[in-house]
Amino acid sequence: MRAAIMRHSQLVVDTVPDPEPLEGEVLVKTLACGICGSDLHALKHADKMIDAAREGGAPFSLDIHRDVVMGHEFCAEVVDFGPHTSAAVVRGERVVSMPLVFRAGAIHGVGYSNDVPGGYGELMVLSAAMVLPVPNGLATEHAALTEPMAVGMHAVAKARLESYDAPLVIGCGPVGLAVIAALKLRGAEPIVAADFSPKRRALAERMGAHVVVDPAVRPTFEAYNEARNLRPAVIFECVGVPGILHQIMRAAPLGARVVVAGVCMEDDHIKPIFGINKELNVQFVLGYQPDEFANTLQAIAAGRIDVAPLVTGRVGVDGVPAAFDTLGNPDTHAKILVEPWR
Amino acid sequence: MRAAIMRHSQLVVDTVPDPEPLEGEVLVKTLACGICGSDLHALKHADKMIDAAREGGAPFSLDIHRDVVMGHEFCAEVVDFGPHTSAAVVRGERVVSMPLVFRAGAIHGVGYSNDVPGGYGELMVLSAAMVLPVPNGLATEHAALTEPMAVGMHAVAKARLESYDAPLVIGCGPVGLAVIAALKLRGAEPIVAADFSPKRRALAERMGAHVVVDPAVRPTFEAYNEARNLRPAVIFECVGVPGILHQIMRAAPLGARVVVAGVCMEDDHIKPIFGINKELNVQFVLGYQPDEFANTLQAIAAGRIDVAPLVTGRVGVDGVPAAFDTLGNPDTHAKILVEPWR
Repeated sequence: MRAAIMRHSQLVVDTVPDPEPLEGEVLVKTLACGICGSDLHALKHADKMIDAAREGGAPFSLDIHRDVVMGHEFCAEVVDFGPHTSAAVVRGERVVSMPLVFRAGAIHGVGYSNDVPGGYGELMVLSAAMVLPVPNGLATEHAALTEPMAVGMHAVAKARLESYDAPLVIGCGPVGLAVIAALKLRGAEPIVAADFSPKRRALAERMGAHVVVDPAVRPTFEAYNEARNLRPAVIFECVGVPGILHQIMRAAPLGARVVVAGVCMEDDHIKPIFGINKELNVQFVLGYQPDEFANTLQAIAAGRIDVAPLVTGRVGVDGVPAAFDTLGNPDTHAKILVEPWR
Repeated sequence: MRAAIMRHSQLVVDTVPDPEPLEGEVLVKTLACGICGSDLHALKHADKMIDAAREGGAPFSLDIHRDVVMGHEFCAEVVDFGPHTSAAVVRGERVVSMPLVFRAGAIHGVGYSNDVPGGYGELMVLSAAMVLPVPNGLATEHAALTEPMAVGMHAVAKARLESYDAPLVIGCGPVGLAVIAALKLRGAEPIVAADFSPKRRALAERMGAHVVVDPAVRPTFEAYNEARNLRPAVIFECVGVPGILHQIMRAAPLGARVVVAGVCMEDDHIKPIFGINKELNVQFVLGYQPDEFANTLQAIAAGRIDVAPLVTGRVGVDGVPAAFDTLGNPDTHAKILVEPWR
């Protein structure tokens, strides 16, 4: 099959062997797959990601000297089944899935594995037990956004919001926009969102932010403190670069809760005394639970989360390397979908 | 009055003016006052503490170019009252108090103020509304430990322990020992505690630790993980030096909650990816609430917290500078009490 491949820290387009479904697996044709910021980072720093995971006791096995087909935000069509495999879906049906394949007692991350290719290729194998049919005639390109939207649903769930909490979303890339959508779904108000990019601020409003802040014009926390009006502060860090957590801890009000949804893979520095003096709480979050993933799909299909504004580009496999370059500039795109059948 | 005074970042013994009680205040004679690690730090780094508090938006006003009489862990005897002041205590009665004086719309930290001297001097003024009589014939030297023990009670309260949580206490100085006492009071089991010092490990056992670990002999988390046996991890950081939080985040198990009770006043570094990959929660804590302070006094007076092992030295005002030097070595003392009447 044709695929965009991570090979020696470069993104190349080439032909690789078709994946073959084992027992309990489904062979699917990739219809659409979002490009995630983590993939951009992995392309440059996969070795560091693997080292950090291993050092922290949450390892994943990946050999960066072998090919990796990335892509974990997908909607696909069922093509075939592995031997002795029954599933709740039929050939030709569209499905989404958490990007995990259970095989021989191990968990493979779809798109972060040498053995299980991701959605930047024409074909994938998925665990039959994990696939969910796309309901309600939901458009393929919107179903493909289940995964990134589930990240926001999970971050908001981990925040354990009370009805009087006032959320602030710092960074309105795909993670921040997903958090805003999940906050809106919960009825949180006012939702304050900050980003330097006008395009991203406009998307934040589309997704449900009540107040958007351009930090170049007004200090984020000045606008936020005015909007929240002494209500408890819950701050979502959705940037994921060194120094952001420090800035938040310095500016956060007394007793604030900080949910770290941004994925900073580098070393970072903080002043603990800011946390101590203000009794801050910092909740790091990652991914989502299966029920959160399924609920996100349902919410999108029911029109309770409108993901349409987020799709800002489409490319075929050949366009993936250029799309990675384009996504380096936050002001042009939210989500670019790879459509390998093109 | 005679007092040990922080003057130009030195500790000197000198005579200073007696404090005079204003309306709503009580004049007291200091009977015993514990030396706190924060005081050791303040002596060297008061300027940094003030800068950090100001930068983080939780400022306290202190002019380090003027005298400061430190000491905020005290038991004292009522001597006199300010004009038009009624109180629930009488002359000659022994009292403790949260080290806060409310005066002219401002809050002064007793022992961290140019205007309100702390317990390293012979006399103090306290807010009449804050003083609590020492109940039950409790020994003065034990009543003086109310403040540091309340720090442990608060840290454990902020941890929101569930009955099946398994606590680990890293660092068995006064803060760690107070946390152990509070954990024991709650019936937490097993309480695992780690410290390089044999003296501190012995005190940890006296205060209620079920398993004590010498990290020089066995990795702390190896012993802890064996003892907790897959129960949820709640880790109390009671060391307060740069690098400890990083070590904890690296070694902590999936989903662990970290309560930062150690007071690290320097810049620190972390790898956020450890927090992210394991969805860690970090709760910074400081001080205590008034009800926690009062409950701590009651628990000590009722014998439910035995603080006797913690008093390892006594000095007069003249002995304070040498005691500060002695406390630089963690293996000799837990709590040294200053008895200014000596």
